[in-house]
Amino acid sequence: MAWMDELKYDSQGLIPAVIQDASDNEVLMVAWMNKDSLRDTVSSGKTHFWSRSRQKYWMKGEESGNVQNVKDISYDCDKDVLVIKVEQVGGAACHTGHRSCFYTHIVDGQAKEDESLVFDPKQVYKK
Amino acid sequence: MAWMDELKYDSQGLIPAVIQDASDNEVLMVAWMNKDSLRDTVSSGKTHFWSRSRQKYWMKGEESGNVQNVKDISYDCDKDVLVIKVEQVGGAACHTGHRSCFYTHIVDGQAKEDESLVFDPKQVYKK
Repeated sequence: MAWMDELKYDSQGLIPAVIQDASDNEVLMVAWMNKDSLRDTVSSGKTHFWSRSRQKYWMKGEESGNVQNVKDISYDCDKDVLVIKVEQVGGAACHTGHRSCFYTHIVDGQAKEDESLVFDPKQVYKK
Repeated sequence: MAWMDELKYDSQGLIPAVIQDASDNEVLMVAWMNKDSLRDTVSSGKTHFWSRSRQKYWMKGEESGNVQNVKDISYDCDKDVLVIKVEQVGGAACHTGHRSCFYTHIVDGQAKEDESLVFDPKQVYKK
């Protein structure tokens, strides 16, 4: 697919992907894709990424079961960021058990964590 | 503010910021901030960025008038991405005249541009 080759990957071959919940557009997570993981995301309809910290290819939900079913893919005018709308299986994207990785908000100049959890990470990640 | 110092900036001192329209959570743009632009975003209540391509500090809307009034700031579990919800003055964030920079969607495997424009860029950027 020509558009995949036209995207601007960084010096490590990566492009950031903003993952939104298709139901209300809440941002669930931001992670990195390389061309292989983007191709597999398109062909399988489930999000795949490249982990910079673990230097590892991964499918979201491969361990937790909380996969993301792709509903829409778009990219920006600079062709260097993806936005992907998904159906989030299990209702939570973050490994901490929060619905979204963005659970820390700035309130009156202070960082305040949202305490509501969708799942208990100890139960989901059992190793 | 301590939380600003705890964020993880990259080797160039930058952190990506996802800008959402507070009215419906649509992603308008993704741009980069350094600590100075983040501080000014917090203190002024209007988004400021660092342009990697122009190597220049800028306030969104400084030329077009389409400033972004900050409604909420959050960051992720890795502390390396910001999500900022804004009121978008003028109704459009992209220099092309589109509401969002993410106006190219993948439809049946092909990239398809949304043609609706909020403003004519020739009228807004007159230089």
